[in-house]
Amino acid sequence: MRRASWPRNAFTKRLGLRRPIVQAPMAGGITTPELVAGVSRIGALGSLAAAISAPQRIRADCEAIRALTGEPFAVNLFVLEPTEADVAEVARGWASLAPFRDELGLSETEPPQQFAQRFDAQLEALIELAPAVASFTFGIVDAQTVERLHARGCYVIGTATHVAEARAWAEVGADAVVAQGAEAGAHRGTFIGGFDEAMVGTMALVPQVVDAVRIPVLAAGGIMDGRGAAAAVMLGASAVVLGTAFLTCFEAGTPAAWKDRLAAAKETDTRVTRVFSGRAARGIVTDFMRRMQALEDTVPAYPIQNALTGGIRAAAARAGNPEYLSLWAGQGVPMARKTSAADLIERVDAQARELLNV
Amino acid sequence: MRRASWPRNAFTKRLGLRRPIVQAPMAGGITTPELVAGVSRIGALGSLAAAISAPQRIRADCEAIRALTGEPFAVNLFVLEPTEADVAEVARGWASLAPFRDELGLSETEPPQQFAQRFDAQLEALIELAPAVASFTFGIVDAQTVERLHARGCYVIGTATHVAEARAWAEVGADAVVAQGAEAGAHRGTFIGGFDEAMVGTMALVPQVVDAVRIPVLAAGGIMDGRGAAAAVMLGASAVVLGTAFLTCFEAGTPAAWKDRLAAAKETDTRVTRVFSGRAARGIVTDFMRRMQALEDTVPAYPIQNALTGGIRAAAARAGNPEYLSLWAGQGVPMARKTSAADLIERVDAQARELLNV
Repeated sequence: MRRASWPRNAFTKRLGLRRPIVQAPMAGGITTPELVAGVSRIGALGSLAAAISAPQRIRADCEAIRALTGEPFAVNLFVLEPTEADVAEVARGWASLAPFRDELGLSETEPPQQFAQRFDAQLEALIELAPAVASFTFGIVDAQTVERLHARGCYVIGTATHVAEARAWAEVGADAVVAQGAEAGAHRGTFIGGFDEAMVGTMALVPQVVDAVRIPVLAAGGIMDGRGAAAAVMLGASAVVLGTAFLTCFEAGTPAAWKDRLAAAKETDTRVTRVFSGRAARGIVTDFMRRMQALEDTVPAYPIQNALTGGIRAAAARAGNPEYLSLWAGQGVPMARKTSAADLIERVDAQARELLNV
Repeated sequence: MRRASWPRNAFTKRLGLRRPIVQAPMAGGITTPELVAGVSRIGALGSLAAAISAPQRIRADCEAIRALTGEPFAVNLFVLEPTEADVAEVARGWASLAPFRDELGLSETEPPQQFAQRFDAQLEALIELAPAVASFTFGIVDAQTVERLHARGCYVIGTATHVAEARAWAEVGADAVVAQGAEAGAHRGTFIGGFDEAMVGTMALVPQVVDAVRIPVLAAGGIMDGRGAAAAVMLGASAVVLGTAFLTCFEAGTPAAWKDRLAAAKETDTRVTRVFSGRAARGIVTDFMRRMQALEDTVPAYPIQNALTGGIRAAAARAGNPEYLSLWAGQGVPMARKTSAADLIERVDAQARELLNV
C-alpha cells in the first residue's frame, strides 16, 4: 500500500512545491496572471487555462505570470482534432439560439466561421514557452509529443475520468495524471468511451487509478477544503486539484454575476450538460439549460456549439445576467468562500496538516 | 472542526461497536442471517434488509440472527406510502415485459396483484422486535415513530442523498444519518426532490452533511477498503457503510451469476436506472437495461415495476443468466473481493488504522 504523504512526496519534490495543491485550469478568462502567480507564489501550483487562447495570447499570459513570480506554473490545453464543421449543422445550431440573441439584442446574423484555436499551433507555443508543467484535457497527446515536452524540461500531466484513460496517459509517458471525479465542475476530460459511462465519483475513482498506474495521481472533484485534501491523500493521491474553490477567489476573472450565483448555490443545483459548449460539463442549472434541455443530445459537438453560444454568454456577462451564462461549478460549491488565493491555500493546507497530523 | 476518530467515537461507543463499519442493507435475499451475524460478531454492524419481507419473515430472520450472535444489528425498511396501482398502467408495464417472459418460458399471464409489503405492518414488527438499530431509506418517518423506536431502545438511522434530507432526519430526532453518495450501488434513498438532482458524489456530500447536522454521519458510496474508510473519516464521517464490498462475501445470498459479473466489472460498467424496480438504482449494465432503455422514464413507479419484473429476475437467477438480473453494484465494484465478511472487515479496519496511524 502506498502511504499518505502531505506535503512532501515524489510529485511535490520533483516540482519544488511546498503545498500539494493545484489550481485547476478554468478557461474563459478565469485564470488571470494574478490568480496563477498568486497560487504559485505561495508554493502551490497555478494553472493557466490556455485552451481558447491564440498562441500570441498564451505567450503574453506566460510573460505576465513570469513577471509576477519565478515559481513553477502549469499551462493547460484542450487536445482537439481540427474541426470540420457541417454547414447545415452549424445553421441548425445557430437558428436554435435565435430567441436568446433576440432577447439580448444581439445583432449578429451570421454564425462565427472559426470554431477553435488550432491545437497544433497552441502546442508549438507551449513547447517554445516551456512552462514547468504542461497539462492536457479533452484528449491525449502521443509519446513523441511527451518526449518533445520532456526535452524542454516540461513535466507532463494528463487528465483521466476512468482507469483506461489513466493507463493511456501512463503509456505515452505522462509524468502524472489527474483523476477527475464526477463531482468536478466544468468540462469532463473523457476521451475514451462516452461521457455517461465516465461519471465515476472521486471516492471510487482515485484508488482505482492509483492501483492502475505507477505515476503520481492528482485527485479532482468535490475537494474544497482540508478535509477533502486529507481524504484524497488517504485514497492515495499525491496532490489535490481545486477548481470551484478558486472560482470565488478575488484574483479569479470570474464574472461578478457568476460569483454571486456560486455563493448562493446548493449541492443539488449543478447538472452535467452539453448545451453550452457541445461537450459534457457540470454547471449550476440556469434558464438557458432548462430552455435548451430538449436539444441536449442534438446540439453540435464542441467546439462548434461553444462558438455558437459565445456571443450570448459574453452579452449575458456584460449584462450581469447569470441565467444565460455557463455557471460551471462542482458539487462542493456551497463550500466555496470569497477570499484570496493565498488564504484559500493556507487554510486547505493547515486543515489537511491538522487532520493528517503532519 | 470535528476531528477524525477511528475506531472510537460517539457512534461506535453508543452502539458498542469495535469497528466503525456498517454492512449496508441489501434487499432480495442478500443479507442472510449468516452475513448479518458474521458482520456483527466481529464488532461491526450487520444490517438485515427487511424491506420486501412480510412481518413474520422479519421475525424469523431476527430470530435466526439472534441465535447466531448477541451483538447489535440493524433492521432496515423502505418507507413507503400504500400503493394505489392504476390498472391501465399496470397492464402497460406488464405488456412491455412480455418478450422477456416469452424468452424465459414464463407462463404467468396475469400481473401480480400485490406490489409491496405494508410499511405500517413492517414498522409494527420492527418496534416489537426492537433491534439495536432501526434504519430507513426511500422516505422519512415522523417524530412520533422515532419516539416509539427510542422507547423500545432502538437507535434510529435515516438515509440522505443531500443536505436537506439530512436536516429532515435530524429534525424528526434520528440518532444518525447515512450520507449516500452518487457512487453507491442499488437504490437511491432520495425522498426530497428528483433523483437527478440528488446524484452528489461522496467526496462532496459527506462534509456538507457533516456541517449541516449535529448527529453522527455515516458515509456511503464508493467505499471498498481501508483507504475509502480513512478518507471518509477525514471528511468527518463517524463510520462507513459498505454495500458492494459485502455482495461478494461468502455469506451473502447474492446469486452466483451476479457474483461472477461483479468480479468482472469495470468502474465504468454501472448506470443508474429505473427499469428494474421503477426507482432509480445503480447496477451493472445488462441486456435488460439496454433493451428497456426507451422506457426508462415511463415504467411504473416503485413498487409496481419491481413487482412486475420480479418473475423475470427470479427466473434469470434460477437459469444463471445475469443479463435479466438487476446486478446492483456501486462504482467501486472492481475493488470487491470474494472473501468472508470477517476477513473483509478486518482488512478494512487494519488498513484504515494504518493510514490513520491509530
